[in-house]
Amino acid sequence: MVDNSPRVAILNHMVQNRSSRTLDRIFHALAHPARRAILHRLARGEQNLTQLAAPLRMSFPAASKHVRVLERARLVRRLVSGRTHLCRIEARPLAEADAWLETYRRIWEQNFDRLDELLEEMKSPQKPTNPQSAKGKQP
Amino acid sequence: MVDNSPRVAILNHMVQNRSSRTLDRIFHALAHPARRAILHRLARGEQNLTQLAAPLRMSFPAASKHVRVLERARLVRRLVSGRTHLCRIEARPLAEADAWLETYRRIWEQNFDRLDELLEEMKSPQKPTNPQSAKGKQP
Repeated sequence: MVDNSPRVAILNHMVQNRSSRTLDRIFHALAHPARRAILHRLARGEQNLTQLAAPLRMSFPAASKHVRVLERARLVRRLVSGRTHLCRIEARPLAEADAWLETYRRIWEQNFDRLDELLEEMKSPQKPTNPQSAKGKQP
Repeated sequence: MVDNSPRVAILNHMVQNRSSRTLDRIFHALAHPARRAILHRLARGEQNLTQLAAPLRMSFPAASKHVRVLERARLVRRLVSGRTHLCRIEARPLAEADAWLETYRRIWEQNFDRLDELLEEMKSPQKPTNPQSAKGKQP
């Protein structure tokens, strides 16, 4: 059955038309532990820049620079209200990264299938290599 | 039902123990169109360095450098046989990137749910805003 839901149509459109530059920015944004930590905390709720910078072992300007990298990848949105800069996670671009990875799922699944077989063989109790022929040799 | 298959045990172990540095390397490797193009071609089969470099609009040393970035992320394995350097995709680290993204799936799915509702509303034929009250106003 072909799924024609708006969600699938949007995802297909995203996959077919996603610019290479967009994926560059998303993957680059995810390639630093401080930026992944920021996303992890924003997933629980909005925080301002001071709150976000506090637990990171770096200067405020350094933390702010990481937030800008996340903004360029459209993974974080900054809502400015007076002197408060509130940050919010925008997880939708991660669906694009996920769609890109999906192409390779078949390959790593095959890797795991082979590993599963190997582990099952190792787990099963040791048996004589060929019980039939061993039996045949009994008097 | 709890899935206790070796595959799930391995994936859980990977997610819990994956080093931050490993994820840095994987996401950094994916953050360049030339490196994604190399993976795309290796997904169809092994190629040597000359074959990989040919369609990339860059020098052979530049292409070779991109392959090294993929090797550091353990996404590509180089099999040296005499003067031939055959490259093979190793997709398993992509499962780690996928497992990291999985944590955020709930958030982007919620985004899409809201978008689905909006699109369905836009698709449905326009109705009077409040037919009941309009009827009541008729003489």
